[in-house]
Parts: sequence; structure tokens; C-alpha cells
Amino acid sequence: MRDSPTQGPAGPADTAGGSGGMSRRRFLRAVGVSGGAGVMLATMGALDLAVTSDASHAGFSPPSPADFSLTGRAAGSVVILGGGVAGLAAAYELGKAGWNCTVLEAQNRIGGRSLTVRGGDEHVDLDGHRQRVGYSEGQYFNAGPARIAQWMVTMDYCRELGVPLEVFANHNADAYIFREENGMKPGQPVRRRAAQSDVYGYVSELLAKATNQGALDQAMTPQDKEKLLAFLRDFGNVGNRISGTQARDWRYLGGSQRGYTAWPGAAGVPFSRALPVPPLSQVFASEVGQELTFNVDFKHDHLMFQPVGGMDAIPLALAARVGPGRIKLGCLVTGVTDGPDRVAVTYREPDGREQRMESDYCIATLPPNLMARVPHNLGPAVQSGLTTFRPTSAGKIGLEYRSRWWETQDRIYGGITETDMDITRIWYPSHGFHSQRGVVVGYYNTDEKADAYAALRPGEREARALAQGMKVHGPKYRTELLTSFSVAWTRVPHVEGAWMDIPKDIDDPVFAPLVNGAGRVYFAGDWLSHVVSWQHGSLTSVRKVVSALHRREVSI
Amino acid sequence: MRDSPTQGPAGPADTAGGSGGMSRRRFLRAVGVSGGAGVMLATMGALDLAVTSDASHAGFSPPSPADFSLTGRAAGSVVILGGGVAGLAAAYELGKAGWNCTVLEAQNRIGGRSLTVRGGDEHVDLDGHRQRVGYSEGQYFNAGPARIAQWMVTMDYCRELGVPLEVFANHNADAYIFREENGMKPGQPVRRRAAQSDVYGYVSELLAKATNQGALDQAMTPQDKEKLLAFLRDFGNVGNRISGTQARDWRYLGGSQRGYTAWPGAAGVPFSRALPVPPLSQVFASEVGQELTFNVDFKHDHLMFQPVGGMDAIPLALAARVGPGRIKLGCLVTGVTDGPDRVAVTYREPDGREQRMESDYCIATLPPNLMARVPHNLGPAVQSGLTTFRPTSAGKIGLEYRSRWWETQDRIYGGITETDMDITRIWYPSHGFHSQRGVVVGYYNTDEKADAYAALRPGEREARALAQGMKVHGPKYRTELLTSFSVAWTRVPHVEGAWMDIPKDIDDPVFAPLVNGAGRVYFAGDWLSHVVSWQHGSLTSVRKVVSALHRREVSI
Repeated sequence: MRDSPTQGPAGPADTAGGSGGMSRRRFLRAVGVSGGAGVMLATMGALDLAVTSDASHAGFSPPSPADFSLTGRAAGSVVILGGGVAGLAAAYELGKAGWNCTVLEAQNRIGGRSLTVRGGDEHVDLDGHRQRVGYSEGQYFNAGPARIAQWMVTMDYCRELGVPLEVFANHNADAYIFREENGMKPGQPVRRRAAQSDVYGYVSELLAKATNQGALDQAMTPQDKEKLLAFLRDFGNVGNRISGTQARDWRYLGGSQRGYTAWPGAAGVPFSRALPVPPLSQVFASEVGQELTFNVDFKHDHLMFQPVGGMDAIPLALAARVGPGRIKLGCLVTGVTDGPDRVAVTYREPDGREQRMESDYCIATLPPNLMARVPHNLGPAVQSGLTTFRPTSAGKIGLEYRSRWWETQDRIYGGITETDMDITRIWYPSHGFHSQRGVVVGYYNTDEKADAYAALRPGEREARALAQGMKVHGPKYRTELLTSFSVAWTRVPHVEGAWMDIPKDIDDPVFAPLVNGAGRVYFAGDWLSHVVSWQHGSLTSVRKVVSALHRREVSI
Repeated sequence: MRDSPTQGPAGPADTAGGSGGMSRRRFLRAVGVSGGAGVMLATMGALDLAVTSDASHAGFSPPSPADFSLTGRAAGSVVILGGGVAGLAAAYELGKAGWNCTVLEAQNRIGGRSLTVRGGDEHVDLDGHRQRVGYSEGQYFNAGPARIAQWMVTMDYCRELGVPLEVFANHNADAYIFREENGMKPGQPVRRRAAQSDVYGYVSELLAKATNQGALDQAMTPQDKEKLLAFLRDFGNVGNRISGTQARDWRYLGGSQRGYTAWPGAAGVPFSRALPVPPLSQVFASEVGQELTFNVDFKHDHLMFQPVGGMDAIPLALAARVGPGRIKLGCLVTGVTDGPDRVAVTYREPDGREQRMESDYCIATLPPNLMARVPHNLGPAVQSGLTTFRPTSAGKIGLEYRSRWWETQDRIYGGITETDMDITRIWYPSHGFHSQRGVVVGYYNTDEKADAYAALRPGEREARALAQGMKVHGPKYRTELLTSFSVAWTRVPHVEGAWMDIPKDIDDPVFAPLVNGAGRVYFAGDWLSHVVSWQHGSLTSVRKVVSALHRREVSI
């Protein structure tokens, strides 16, 4: 972080989550001395209102107009390169203190990768594929980010901006796992519920067996063993009493959590469990267990959330606060020249005219692969940092169906089916349950699988996605389709990548010129965070840069 | 099931989920013979529209007016005892075919245990405790059932009735586990996320150890072992490569899924994992693992759902279809007399007058403990069946808070904290995220824990619930409270129990007179199902009884 040269070293408490607290305390002390306790208390109150109450992201105090008015300084100007979530959030936060921000966005829309696609939209990719979106009224497709973990700072922005949230169904026990390579036949996916029961069941059987044989006596006390076995009984549905004895049978034989082919209901009406239970070898060979562990990842565990009506609610709300006059669309950045007192940015307007803008500061939020192409005088270390990032490939298709067959026929309300096919996974919508239509994500793949779809024309992508999805869902996957839209993020103009692959730790010295900023130019984006590809990474990066820039100005 | 005496035995396909299909086929055959193919096709179309498309509950064809009009018969009359979900659903389904139904409900409201409490409501219990509900506008508390599993037929009713659904957050990795008896101190609950990581981690470490030692060579092939270890690596976050060698370290040392005290964010900003990882003995001794297995139960696994705005949306929608003229509130059933051609029901009107109603059939949906007190001539086998059920105790309190501190401070958006205290658990609301206020369920307990709270006055229940909840959440749990409402289901007039404990299998012969019906009297409710305490049990029971009653009439 590029601290103001006049600022002393920050204590550990201040560095934890941005260093806004330090200068605020020093500032308050100064105000208290010159204006008396009354002014100090009033100022504290005003600042405290702006401090987020969330403990996990404490430490960020947004820039405040009082920082200028009470010190007799004036807010300066900032040119922000890129109108995605990072650029918009930077303009929003700096605008709170009265900074004069201008956002330059090359596309004709804001949001960057936070793209929600709706009927009537038109998108043209770098290969000239033009898609006019045919979705019905009210339907949408989050072509970029689509889910928020509750610990993420994105939640705080939704609260602050008044963006309503609903649960994003990241996991559904009734969704499927389908692994062709492991011998599953078309039309025979397994329910996640059954896979989980079998994996947990056999794991429990094996561990109980080893425990009872004494194989783990070195690792556990008798009390540990007793407690462990009690857990395994519940967890794996094993260890039932053998009739007439006190011994327990630790074999896994299936159980109610596998699900039913006819669910239990009225007395006198037979019900039947989903059987047979596959043998241990088959369960482990099928590798279904690996598909279950996704949900114990800290970014994907329950619960997750989505903005009601589409992920672009976040950039739209940010842009509304920034104000349309400060956001210039269709403006391609062509050069950045840092100087001792000002930074000059040149850009090409939609009509082709070159413009030059001088500002006090610049925040560059373009993807590093694109920023690396912009002529600049920031030095080889900056360029070396920018070219170290590698854009990755990801693709998505949004299939609009005339009926919600996944709910009425497959009984899947939201959640994700994981496959080993090139579509990787199928997402069912987490909203509009029981309504007429819905958009299913027919693939969300990465790397070479995404490249394979990127190489196809949109119609070919649809055909391929349908052929694969039919192996899970059968003919209705094709016959109920209304229309589709697909995105290949490497082929999106002015984006050219899904997110960055970072071959070294982001705190490696090679990135220091970007992390700390160069002269009057700062850099921000999810690529400058520990949480790449998430808005959280982008927003925390912005908070840090905004704090540094603002503190540099007010604490001189 | 009491089949019509003239009906032949049903084939296996017909018995799976109610026997409506059989008589429908026979009926269609009859129509086809007498009316020609045109009539047959038209009739099939009309019937097919009414068949639910959900495979798991296929087989139920609701009574149709065509069943009468095409056979020249007239729909008869049915008196239905009880205006809960069972009674209302019975009237709704029979009403589809034109049956003249009357619902007798002792309370001044419909819904029975499907009770949603709102500001301004007033409830008086059997002990004379009068609670006037002080919730703010828009707030509500589901005092009875509150969640629906997606496989349940309740989902189909919501679709058919146009009751909008949203996700019910049954599991949240960021909610807590708090076990006093296992040594956790007030203010030191553990996040479910950390507990899960630790339990899965040590289970994986132990099982990997046993596997690598050869202790399970009898149970697994070398390939099984390899696949199992690959799973355990992901599942337990164990098995990292030891630097410089090809060996793996299978010790569990924690990992990112435990969560963070400072979450990862911007580059250059430190973050810190939630540490230290408790040792194996402590993890198993704390019994946190048992709290995790709740979510692999087939009734509680992801995803679950709730009606938008309150669970009473279901009985209200049913009642709207039945029509208010057919539902008599405040009418207490005082006798049931079955006869050869009619059944007579006596009841006391709100003004105290005794009334007598003769109908073709009766469906009794009162809880069996209350039905057992109603004088009847249905014989000792019926009475013996009724008195075999044992009402259970359950209680809930809905605490309205002036702020949603669980979201802004604890970062918990929905889900459930499990404890070993007498409150058992705390539910956070699954809707209204980021809004001003919210209702937290401060206890949902059963058996002796519920009895303990039932014995208290409402104010005392609140004080006790707050004292317990503060051990998890601290002083804000008391200071932010606005108002509360509590229910003790054993003390609710005309209910007197949460659900039934059934000491034998519901298919035991002692219950046959209830399951099959007695003369012209049928019985329905969740207590006559394999899914006691769920609306699904009630609704499937009703479907079976309605099918039997209707088929008996149309197939004579």
C-alpha cells in the first residue's frame, strides 16, 4: 500500500482491513484540539455513521466531505479507467467525499463482467458473432458473476445501496451428478442426495471398522473412539443394533437419506427407497464424492445470495449514485502519462475523436491484459507486473425454457448438477419457482472446455450444450427450449478474459508496483486481491486504493 | 385403504401412490364403450389436465365433476371435522368434483397448527395466558410448520394454489453451534463452518491413516484405496504433499473452509484464518459433529422452501378455493353417529346452540387425542386406535428485533444455530434480508424442554429464552428486542399437542380401523401418515381418503 509520505507507521490494528482508522484518529485528535470536545463528538458521530458495522470488514471508513471541509482543503479530480464494479465503486466511494470523478468505459454499457442479459439486448463478440437476445419479458441470465457468499463485502454494498437479495441455491440434494467417464449411462444420473449418502455411508463403515479393529488406538483414546462411533452412526447411517444382541452392524446398507422412488406418504400406501445401494468399489470409482466437496469450500458453502432481478443491480446501483454525467461510455483509453502534479489520460470518444484529460489522480481498473496494451510512462516494473497475469477462459449459456420441467418433472428447485462432460455443470434458477418459464445455465465451464465452446458459433454452442444436457435430462432438454444466449469471456470486447490466472502469490514483489500504485496512478480490481474472480476481491481492492488515495490527500 | 366392495384388486402400479388410476382406467373404458372415441378422448384430456406431472407423487387423480356427470350420478355431502390443512385440503379436493362439503372448525380461525402470527392477533391458551401480538407491520412468525422439502407434495399444492415460494435457509455454514455441556463458554459458540471442517478433517485423517496402514486391505482393493484417498484429500483438506518428497501428510491442520477472523481481500492487506484448530479429542468430545448430520436427513437436506409472507398462505389459499360459506368457525364437534345411509354429526355453535348435521360421509381430521373424546358409535377398535397416539410437546417463540444484528454483526443470513440448551435452537429469518427488522425464532424445542417453557407465563418464557440466547449472541440479544410471542402447542385450545408420537408403525393393525375408515367415517391427518408433523403427511393422507371416498361413490 502506498502510504502518504508524511504518515507514520500504522499499528497492527490499523493494517488489518485498510488503514482508514489511523488517519481518522489523528484527524479527530487534531479537530479535538482546535475545535473543542463538542466539535469532536459531532465529527465522530458523523464518521461513525459511515463505518460499516460488520466486524469482518471493519476498518474501512469511506472518504468523507468533512475530511476536506474541516481541514480547509478541496477535493481533487480522479479519472477512473473502466466502468465495471471496481471503477464504479471507486467513483462511488470517492464521491462520498466530493472527489470529482470521471469514469471512462470502452463498452457502451457499464458493469464489465457483471453482465445480466435480457430480451432485446444485443451483443457482438470479437469474432463478429452477433446475438440478439430473445428471452421473454422478466427472464434474465447472469452471464458473469452470479452468487455472493455471505461473508463477502459485496453483501455490505448491497445493503448500503439498497439492492435486495435472495438466496442463491448453490447446493441442492436433489440435483444430479453425472459422470460419463465413470460409467454412468445417459438418462441415469445419480441424485446428489444418494451420492452423499453412499459416500458418507462407506466412509463411516470403513472408519468404524478400523476403529473397532484397534487400528487407530495410537491416534485415539477410548473416549475419542466412543464419540467418533456415535458420530459415524448418524453421519453414515451405520451401526444399527443387530437384533437380539448388543453388537452393532457397521455395514452401510443405505438409508432414508438416499431418497425414495416413491416417497413416504399416507398410512397404508407403500413407499420405496431408491435402491439398490451400489457397492463400495463402484461408489468410490464413480468419483461422486469429489463433486460433494465443492460445498465445503469457504467461497461456496451455504448460504449464498443473489440480487433480486439480476446481478447487474449492483453496478446499476453504483452508477446511479455516481451519476450518469460522470460516466463516459464508449471511450477507449489510449494512453496514461503520469506527471509530478497531474496525470494525463488520452482516450478515443465514440465518434473517433482523441481527447486528453488531466486529473490529480488516476485509478486503473482495466483487466491487466488490456492495461498492458495501453501506452504509459509508469515504468517497466509496472509493465512487468501487468504482463504476469494470464487471462483465463470461461463460458456460459443461458437456456430459456417454455416450462420449468426441472421443477415439475425432475423435482429440482434451484441448485447445480455437476457433470464430467464439457458443459461441466447445469444451474437451475434460484428464483421464480413454479412460474411459467425460466433460464437454465446449460454450461458454465472453464479452460479448454470453455475454449472449445468459444470456438463455436452461438447456434453450434447451443446444439452442443443441448446434446450434452440431454444425457442428464432426456429429450425435454431440447424440446422445451425457447431460446439461448451464450458468452465466451475471452471473446468479449474490452474484457478478453474471465478472470486472471496469477502464477505467483499476489503479494509477490513483482506485483508491488501495481498493489502500491505508481506515482499518481493506482490500480484496482479483483486481480489485485486474494479473491480473484469475485466482486468481493474487486471491492476490497477498491476500498484499499480509495483509502490510500484519499488519505494521501487529506493528511499532507 | 377401504376400497369399494365392488372394485377388484388393484395392480401393483395402481397401489403405489393412491389407487385413483385404476378406477379412472375402468371408467374410461366404460365411457369409451358407451360414448365413442370422441367422448373418450375429450374425457381423457380433461382428466389429464388434473393429473399432477410430478413423478414422485403420480397416481393421484383428483375427483372430477365428469365422474358424476358422465355416470348420471350426483355428488353427495361430506362433513369434515377440523379446518386445518387436512380438513381444508379434503374439502378442496372433493369440491373439484362438486361434493357438497362443510368444514367444522372449533377455533375462530382456519389453519390449525399452520399458524402464522402477526401484529394485532390475539391468542389465549388453555391456561388463560392472553397474548396480544405486538409485531410490526409486515413481520410474521410461523408458530407451527415453517419449511417444506422439495420432494413433498406440499410443493405441488403451492404450485396448484398459486402460493409463491422462496428458499427456507435450513442450513447456514456461518450459523453457530453452542454446546454448554461440552465446555463451550458463553460468547464462544463455534461456527458450523469450522465445526464441519474439523470433523471432516479428523475423520479424513483417521481414515487415511488406517487405509495407509493396511488396516482396511480386506475391505478395499488398491484402486478403492486410491480413489478413497483422493476423496479424503478434498473432503478433509488433508494429504498435502510434504515439501521436497512425494509423500503426503495426512494430518488435519485446518484449512480455508474453517473460515477467517479477517477474510481475504485486497492484495497487500493481511488476512487471518480462524485458529487455533482444536485437537481431535476436543472436536469429538464437543459432539459438534452430531449437529451437522441433521442436514443429511431426507426431510431436512437442501433445499427447503417456505411460502412468501407466511406459512398460513397454504390454508388461506385452500380456504379461498373451498369458499367461506362451507367453513363454519367456532363450531365444536360433540358427537359422531354413523348409520347405514348417512352419518350424523352434532356440534355446538359459537352461541352455544347444539346443531345436528346429516351427511353422506364424514372425514375426521381432528387430532386423535381430541377425536378420542368425541362420543361416537364407531366401535372400540376405532377408539383403541385413537387412544394409541400420544401427543407430543413443542414450543416456539418469535422474537422481533429492531435491527437485524445477526446479519450486520454476526454475518448470519438465515439458517439455524443449534445448542444443547433448553432453547435447543435459534432460527434466523430466511427473508427480508437487510431490511430494518426481523423475527428470530428464539426457541424451537420439544418434549421436556418444551414442557418447561409451557409451564411459564409468556413473559417468563421470553426472559428465559433471552438469557439462553445471550450466551450465544451477547447483550444485543436482549437490548435489541422489541416484542415476542410464544406458543406451547400442548396448551393451544382444540389442538393440545404438537404432533403425535406413534408407538407402533402406522401400518400396524391397531390403526387399521382409522386408516381404512369406519363405515361412512374416514380419518385423515399427518398422524395417519409415514411423515408425521409435516403438511406432506397430512396432504398425502387426505389424497388417499378423498380418492377412496370418491371412488366408493362413483364406482358403485
